[in-house]
Amino acid sequence: MPHSVAVFGAAGFTGALSARLVFRHPQFELQTVTARSDVGRRLDELYPHHRVPVTLEELDLDRHADGLDAAIVAYPHGAAAELVSELRARDVRVVDLSADFRLHDAAVYGEWYREHPAPEMLSQAVYGLPERYRDQIRHADLVANPGCYPTATLLALAPLARAGLIRDVVVDAKSGVSGAGRAATEKTHFVSVDENISPYGLPRHRHTPEIEQELAALGAEVMITFVPHLLPLDQGELVSCYVTLTRADDDLDALYGAAYGEEPFVEVVSTAPGVRDVRETNLCRIRVHRDERTGRAVVFAVIDNLWKGAASQAGQNLNLMFGRPEEEGLT
Amino acid sequence: MPHSVAVFGAAGFTGALSARLVFRHPQFELQTVTARSDVGRRLDELYPHHRVPVTLEELDLDRHADGLDAAIVAYPHGAAAELVSELRARDVRVVDLSADFRLHDAAVYGEWYREHPAPEMLSQAVYGLPERYRDQIRHADLVANPGCYPTATLLALAPLARAGLIRDVVVDAKSGVSGAGRAATEKTHFVSVDENISPYGLPRHRHTPEIEQELAALGAEVMITFVPHLLPLDQGELVSCYVTLTRADDDLDALYGAAYGEEPFVEVVSTAPGVRDVRETNLCRIRVHRDERTGRAVVFAVIDNLWKGAASQAGQNLNLMFGRPEEEGLT
Amino acid sequence: MPHSVAVFGAAGFTGALSARLVFRHPQFELQTVTARSDVGRRLDELYPHHRVPVTLEELDLDRHADGLDAAIVAYPHGAAAELVSELRARDVRVVDLSADFRLHDAAVYGEWYREHPAPEMLSQAVYGLPERYRDQIRHADLVANPGCYPTATLLALAPLARAGLIRDVVVDAKSGVSGAGRAATEKTHFVSVDENISPYGLPRHRHTPEIEQELAALGAEVMITFVPHLLPLDQGELVSCYVTLTRADDDLDALYGAAYGEEPFVEVVSTAPGVRDVRETNLCRIRVHRDERTGRAVVFAVIDNLWKGAASQAGQNLNLMFGRPEEEGLT
Amino acid sequence: MPHSVAVFGAAGFTGALSARLVFRHPQFELQTVTARSDVGRRLDELYPHHRVPVTLEELDLDRHADGLDAAIVAYPHGAAAELVSELRARDVRVVDLSADFRLHDAAVYGEWYREHPAPEMLSQAVYGLPERYRDQIRHADLVANPGCYPTATLLALAPLARAGLIRDVVVDAKSGVSGAGRAATEKTHFVSVDENISPYGLPRHRHTPEIEQELAALGAEVMITFVPHLLPLDQGELVSCYVTLTRADDDLDALYGAAYGEEPFVEVVSTAPGVRDVRETNLCRIRVHRDERTGRAVVFAVIDNLWKGAASQAGQNLNLMFGRPEEEGLT
Repeated sequence: MPHSVAVFGAAGFTGALSARLVFRHPQFELQTVTARSDVGRRLDELYPHHRVPVTLEELDLDRHADGLDAAIVAYPHGAAAELVSELRARDVRVVDLSADFRLHDAAVYGEWYREHPAPEMLSQAVYGLPERYRDQIRHADLVANPGCYPTATLLALAPLARAGLIRDVVVDAKSGVSGAGRAATEKTHFVSVDENISPYGLPRHRHTPEIEQELAALGAEVMITFVPHLLPLDQGELVSCYVTLTRADDDLDALYGAAYGEEPFVEVVSTAPGVRDVRETNLCRIRVHRDERTGRAVVFAVIDNLWKGAASQAGQNLNLMFGRPEEEGLT
Repeated sequence: MPHSVAVFGAAGFTGALSARLVFRHPQFELQTVTARSDVGRRLDELYPHHRVPVTLEELDLDRHADGLDAAIVAYPHGAAAELVSELRARDVRVVDLSADFRLHDAAVYGEWYREHPAPEMLSQAVYGLPERYRDQIRHADLVANPGCYPTATLLALAPLARAGLIRDVVVDAKSGVSGAGRAATEKTHFVSVDENISPYGLPRHRHTPEIEQELAALGAEVMITFVPHLLPLDQGELVSCYVTLTRADDDLDALYGAAYGEEPFVEVVSTAPGVRDVRETNLCRIRVHRDERTGRAVVFAVIDNLWKGAASQAGQNLNLMFGRPEEEGLT
Repeated sequence: MPHSVAVFGAAGFTGALSARLVFRHPQFELQTVTARSDVGRRLDELYPHHRVPVTLEELDLDRHADGLDAAIVAYPHGAAAELVSELRARDVRVVDLSADFRLHDAAVYGEWYREHPAPEMLSQAVYGLPERYRDQIRHADLVANPGCYPTATLLALAPLARAGLIRDVVVDAKSGVSGAGRAATEKTHFVSVDENISPYGLPRHRHTPEIEQELAALGAEVMITFVPHLLPLDQGELVSCYVTLTRADDDLDALYGAAYGEEPFVEVVSTAPGVRDVRETNLCRIRVHRDERTGRAVVFAVIDNLWKGAASQAGQNLNLMFGRPEEEGLT
Repeated sequence: MPHSVAVFGAAGFTGALSARLVFRHPQFELQTVTARSDVGRRLDELYPHHRVPVTLEELDLDRHADGLDAAIVAYPHGAAAELVSELRARDVRVVDLSADFRLHDAAVYGEWYREHPAPEMLSQAVYGLPERYRDQIRHADLVANPGCYPTATLLALAPLARAGLIRDVVVDAKSGVSGAGRAATEKTHFVSVDENISPYGLPRHRHTPEIEQELAALGAEVMITFVPHLLPLDQGELVSCYVTLTRADDDLDALYGAAYGEEPFVEVVSTAPGVRDVRETNLCRIRVHRDERTGRAVVFAVIDNLWKGAASQAGQNLNLMFGRPEEEGLT
């Protein structure tokens, strides 16, 4: 019998794609989609290419949580925590796409976002990067889906971090416009982005502490410099990681081959990766390269920010949580 | 002594470009720029590439019209008429970028827009297509700057119309996103436009009566089918005009050569024109072609919608109104 | 037992996508991919996003046709006919992506292409537009896959043609760059296309007779004006069809609803269709609209030129030829 | 009396733009344009938007150097040196756009390019970055115009280098496709670039030694990591420089303000610079930012790679060489 899944906050880019992936999944049933704007409109009117003929409803938890096995919450940071709490109180398993449960330390959250709305729940959440926390995710009731930049950066750096090779890191990240969300703003206006590239998020971007927390958990206690840039394209994200190494002679290709040889959604390649290579997939494609002149390692990773960076990674997590094959509904 | 010029409504795309062209013009002086939003911000903050270091002010006609020789009004349709009236009452010469004074017949305006706010002034306005009404513009105090689509379409069709060759016309128009204005909307969101093309403005676009009025004045009393499409590019507009001819044997190349041989801003070419060819210029580039199988004439015209389609054509009109060389400040 | 299928000419855009669709199809087996350039390279090196880990071979018919059930031939016009003849001589069923077997009349082919290489085979070919010739395709051994523009145009116009409503047609078509193929030329250089749009194919495009042949077969004996334009996007094609009608009062919405209500791959909508809506699908999305002022019908149709315009339509045809469900492997 | 200037190699992007800037310059006269391909075609046919109605000729030095004051050489690396030698032998002053005279040390050139064709001339060349070598350029007969990446990077880093602040540098560079030149290749095909970004030039890019040579001359003897990326846009280049500083407390804003306050073509800003801000200008726009958490300086610089990165910087150099105002013909 299929598991019933709701997507709360399905009018935005990541929520809508989550709805599509659940709707097409052979073992999940899309029970409800809600939104705060656009109530009453059909998803296939807002997003014709997703072809999900389901109407957006106003949230009504008594009704929507009834008999619900799981929820994907695609609310903004800060707004998600309350809904997640209520869902957990009704025993609904949750994958939360926001940042609200990614940081273990409420004080760090407070420093980068605002006072945490539900600090007592932080310890229950598992960080939803399957390649790192696969076993914990299987038994988790609350999964904090990683940010798009942390997903790419952590997959790029994890083998180096685990091997104790990282002394220092600069991450220069580049993202398509869908990462800025559906809101129509001066920043997302076509004329602002077209034929342009510029850095953003200065002086410091909120994905920084998430990356540092997880690098530290892998053994690399470093302060990183992380600078994202906005690109004139829709979906896709590239992180270029410049790593000062602690040792000079490790075989990096072997290290990455061993780390990801069995991973269904990570490709280690020896050519320059492009974001087109992974568009509309749950894949992360990685190249590691040693700059012989400076001794630095340069690691590139590309993902689709809406897929592996959000919605399809949520699907991968749901598969793990419900004992389904990890690739089901994602290829 | 330079003529003092104000741009009212300079925060939008066409107003800001108008301000730049006036600011760089050797014989005009940019006296004031006003806006309804963004008051207090500098134009070179909103539009760095225009490099106009002038601050947007709130409209204060008593102050701003004092000693003013001319104004470019870049207000929305409907809102422009009142300001234009007040400026004319103070004897300021005006180039109005809105549609408010383009149609001679208030009833037609009412049918396509809304009740005309100042119908008594319609007869004073000269339609500001210099290649058509050059002499009248020289002596006009109120010039109604043409719409971008009418500019390209009329330049494409005028020689045929004047020769009595037009039986019927379909105009398939394609425009970049800047034509939709600076407002951040779902329609102008990068993700909506990128890798996309779609028709818009159905069931009927407001530029239709303007084109028909001017074709009729040239002798072609036709009802046209006009359909615009939105393109994934910033500036540029192509109209593809499909004309059923009244006669079969005219030498179209000779006709166009004669019509535009002396025009400084019209290029008649024998290759396929692209919008890149005229980007950031006041030029219109035209190709006429006879489809031998069907007997139709196909005429293509490209312009930059913000330049010849709006701001630089306003500059061309100002040059005429003040007895300046027509190309001054525009090349 | 799966049917074995080869793709001959798999290094180009449509051949490579065909190989991917066969490779992922549950009931077809990709037996061979050949190419004239790039022999020895793997398809997933040329096209990482297709993820087909198969090596391109040089054609060796004795070996490759042995035990082969079907072939997709993705050779250039003129070069395909000979290979198709040889395949048919070995009793391999063929879907040919070229224009070589689309026109019934060798003289017409000769006029638009060159002398036909195998005129005796023309009568055996079925025109592979499933929505039109579904039953014949089921029993065909040689299917001539339609051109991309004819696919969209014929789906747009068939209901009007069948109802005897077409007096005259102008087709203004717009295509992304992938339609120009993989060859690196001045025309496909990024800098030529970016921020540009221009007509091409003048004075007359080779898809014209294909469209006219099929319109005539539906009862509309007309000479059309067909003008394609090149767009700054990758995949996607929009045709805007301007139709002078023979009668004034037919209910066009009802006509299209009836024509396509049961079609799995045609969507009739009442909003403006965009090429993004059908990207990477076998769908054609259509809007019919009556211009009340002129009485014309305006019909828009969008497809993905590489999918419904070529490779996935080939897959749809193969499904029909082998008695598989028409949508299998295509959604 | 105007100075006569030839552009040798005017069929490529930078040569053609050089020809346009000379053609429009009030004090230079475009005497000749040559090319190795496209001889006999007019520049305004190849590049309509430049509007230079001059025909490309085959090189004939006896004729072309006669009475010539200066030449811009836009030949490929390696091929330029011989022509430059011959021009200098005829006493023609040269601005060379290639890399052939940028490196002082023939051995370094040999390591990154190939054996130097004219090592004896290296000592005569002045590195043509006016903001650095203005006085030497005034008296130079051979100016080696900098590469696009070095131009942006050196302007970004010079104030830090001069102040002894640079311990270590990573340069993550992003460029539009015009930087790859006019040759139609798989890399410049629209479909390869569109909706994509990827690193290129690995394992090491030839602009590296040029940057290191000039940083050393400013006092910063460092080995840099330099990685360029290809962007889906036409013209524009952004370098993001991550600098480990030698000292913690310098006022970076004051440092940059002092360095560039008088420079006509350098803008120091406090907002995020975008490549659109400088499109089709000779400007470099810079932002310096201190990452308070890591102590690093992050410096962004944007230029138009064809303008300040090549052709307009050549014009700036010519102005200096001929005692003209530095901005003449460039604004």
